[in-house]
Amino acid sequence: MKLGRLNHIGVATPSIADSIVFYREVMGATKIHEPFDLPEQGVKVCFVDTPTDTGLNGTQIELIEPLPGNTSIAGFLEKNPAGGQHHMCYEVPDIHAAKAEFEAMGKRVLGEPRIGAHGTPIFFVHPKDMGGVLTEIMETPKGAH
Amino acid sequence: MKLGRLNHIGVATPSIADSIVFYREVMGATKIHEPFDLPEQGVKVCFVDTPTDTGLNGTQIELIEPLPGNTSIAGFLEKNPAGGQHHMCYEVPDIHAAKAEFEAMGKRVLGEPRIGAHGTPIFFVHPKDMGGVLTEIMETPKGAH
Repeated sequence: MKLGRLNHIGVATPSIADSIVFYREVMGATKIHEPFDLPEQGVKVCFVDTPTDTGLNGTQIELIEPLPGNTSIAGFLEKNPAGGQHHMCYEVPDIHAAKAEFEAMGKRVLGEPRIGAHGTPIFFVHPKDMGGVLTEIMETPKGAH
Repeated sequence: MKLGRLNHIGVATPSIADSIVFYREVMGATKIHEPFDLPEQGVKVCFVDTPTDTGLNGTQIELIEPLPGNTSIAGFLEKNPAGGQHHMCYEVPDIHAAKAEFEAMGKRVLGEPRIGAHGTPIFFVHPKDMGGVLTEIMETPKGAH
């Protein structure tokens, strides 16, 4: 495969509300999107844009807060109560082709492609097969960029 | 302050040589810079470019391997033997102004500004004050972008 755009860095937080204040007041973010629930994944998410020279398409920060019943993010927060860097997400043109390529390389794809926070199919690859980085692969939104 | 460009994501690795193979062969990176030692920080580093629609200025991945005698990255790798996400780095126009602003907000700046991997002054801010994210602040290279 060919390396795709670094769409976002997933950052777990115990409170998206508090993180929004942090990114606005401390870091000076000016484009913070509306938080929303992603019940299929058991999380609430909120995207923070980072600037680029062109103004286009900076890598986003995806704030992630566990919804009740979530175990994976809740477990991460037990180990990292203040929150922290959780995953890195790259875009691909075709999610099924990407899944087949990772699997052909012996990488553990975690489940079938499902709709992610940007409304396109995503999957995760096991961090132990990816240099310790939990890696999300997402299909580029049609018409994006 | 105003949120600056997300310059890079620091990713610790036990072997930059192995990580270069991973980013080239598995992730399909096409622009991998020459690794070099940064002895003042006790690390070897290597930048991997990620693509953007304009071809300009994607957020980089900074691979970081400890040099002998390094304790901070070596300690991180003891807890995360495969490596993993280590820090996030944002650009600012003036490193001393940024340091004063973080300190005025009660954030623990770790040491005085020093020359970082891109040849401009940098400092780190304590992750416990930054939502669990070890945060590097770097002055934008003059004439860059």
